[in-house]
Amino acid sequence: MEFRLIDRIRERTALARGDVRLGIGDDAAVLAVPAGQELAVAIDTLVEGVHFPRGTAPAAIGWKALAVNLSDLAAMGAAPAWALLALTLPSAEPGWVDGLAEGFAELAGEHGLALVGGDTTRGPLCLSVAVHGFVPSGQALTRAGARPGDAIMVTGTLGDAAGGLRLTREGAMPDRMRVDHAHLLARLDRPTPRVRAGLALRTRAHACIDVSDGLLADLGHLCAASGVGAELDVETLPLSAALRTVFGAAAARECALAGGDDYELCFTVSPEDVTDVESALAAVACPVSRIGRIVAGEGVRVPGAAVPSSVGWDHFAR
Amino acid sequence: MEFRLIDRIRERTALARGDVRLGIGDDAAVLAVPAGQELAVAIDTLVEGVHFPRGTAPAAIGWKALAVNLSDLAAMGAAPAWALLALTLPSAEPGWVDGLAEGFAELAGEHGLALVGGDTTRGPLCLSVAVHGFVPSGQALTRAGARPGDAIMVTGTLGDAAGGLRLTREGAMPDRMRVDHAHLLARLDRPTPRVRAGLALRTRAHACIDVSDGLLADLGHLCAASGVGAELDVETLPLSAALRTVFGAAAARECALAGGDDYELCFTVSPEDVTDVESALAAVACPVSRIGRIVAGEGVRVPGAAVPSSVGWDHFAR
Repeated sequence: MEFRLIDRIRERTALARGDVRLGIGDDAAVLAVPAGQELAVAIDTLVEGVHFPRGTAPAAIGWKALAVNLSDLAAMGAAPAWALLALTLPSAEPGWVDGLAEGFAELAGEHGLALVGGDTTRGPLCLSVAVHGFVPSGQALTRAGARPGDAIMVTGTLGDAAGGLRLTREGAMPDRMRVDHAHLLARLDRPTPRVRAGLALRTRAHACIDVSDGLLADLGHLCAASGVGAELDVETLPLSAALRTVFGAAAARECALAGGDDYELCFTVSPEDVTDVESALAAVACPVSRIGRIVAGEGVRVPGAAVPSSVGWDHFAR
Repeated sequence: MEFRLIDRIRERTALARGDVRLGIGDDAAVLAVPAGQELAVAIDTLVEGVHFPRGTAPAAIGWKALAVNLSDLAAMGAAPAWALLALTLPSAEPGWVDGLAEGFAELAGEHGLALVGGDTTRGPLCLSVAVHGFVPSGQALTRAGARPGDAIMVTGTLGDAAGGLRLTREGAMPDRMRVDHAHLLARLDRPTPRVRAGLALRTRAHACIDVSDGLLADLGHLCAASGVGAELDVETLPLSAALRTVFGAAAARECALAGGDDYELCFTVSPEDVTDVESALAAVACPVSRIGRIVAGEGVRVPGAAVPSSVGWDHFAR
């Protein structure tokens, strides 16, 4: 059974990469890292009932399991190459597995990523994906390089996924025919990993992190790793029209500061490089906003805003 | 919480490897594969109630989650380098996590392997481990190179883990004070991945697989991948004294043919290389037996033995 399930996924993620010397089907894959490149590697797990509600469309699960990992590669400035998928599921329903494979394969195809290994076991629904990407030796972006005076920037808009989650939890069914509801739900279910933006930031950003736990929490991690503090201009937080329309400006701002699952990139650059970064990200069609500055000291301050007491996204606290 | 759990494991698997440019703590690890080496990569999942019974000692779970993956590297002739650990658990009990970390770290330390990434989530107990090893370019062992006339060989003894499993399932409590019971249970709980044997076989074996699903099933995979058949000499199957004492010769043989979880290596070599292989494995203190021959055709035959009807280890069928 194991081989057939993985085969269904492999059929949809078939991709000829010269660096895959031996793909799925033996005891391990055999892979070649190009000369001059280092390997960026991350693993993330999604559990039913914790990271997505029971009844989520399998294609959305497959997409998101890969997206959250590609977001980690993006934050390092790495180009996606290979993935492993460990899938635990209660029963082997072919239709469900096909749906998952399609969502996974759609995003993998967009980034030229090959599935090179997997394991399928019976048990409560849960997926772990490990991804591997390439980055020229010594050029990986880390959380640790921010310097006082740096501009803090963020891609896309913040808080949409938190808004989508709020919609599904308010008891009132979200109205998928409403374009703003649909936008927020899509941001929750099918996040866009900022892979091309990460590549563009490689030689430009001083420090970078992806916003998975919420801006305050993740920028806090970046500051801690860099030994600096941060000051945000709350008025400059990028909020989608959908989020403002559905929840109003104050709640939208709260989602943007504390909500998780956005998978945007938050990074710092020299103030004199802001224009160059804006051009580089425009070239890959990625919106970007300048939202604050790195300061000496520690912690993240948001002058004039009531900072939500619960910052971040703790999977043991929910 | 996530970071603290992974930290507890990291503290116990701290290991300076020059090829780890950036370890746990950023969005991804950054790793360097040495020149001239390819990367062997595998992932395997253990689920409570499927791969180990509820109540299993956490150290045994940590050990086994890594061991089954190292066994995949061994079968490829790869030298272990790095691991990722995705851990889903219902609650964050420090003592339990410490136990798991100790079992994992003990085996990792034996093989100089560094934990470079992880994810911890709340949910039903399950672990996925991904391992990465090095093999000189073009030298990976695969399942596909067996030729008619090859001798079939296997490391260690077969069937012990199946015997151990049978002991825990017979209702009668296994007697851990009995040396033969203890031996079989240890083989089930703490399998020894044949890493050094795999390295010694690199330039010697034509094809290799690890025995995780049972000899008949795994040798069948090897034959299918190589486009050949196999004939086993049932009298030469390596059986431990413990297995024969506890269950008798006939049942012991059945465990050896069909039982899973042994994590020995089954491989084929030219008949004229058998002596050389025996010496090479003796040099790494790994017992080895010659158990049959590769033939033209397909399938695995065991003349004179009633082949168990259920061969192999299907995690969806148990």
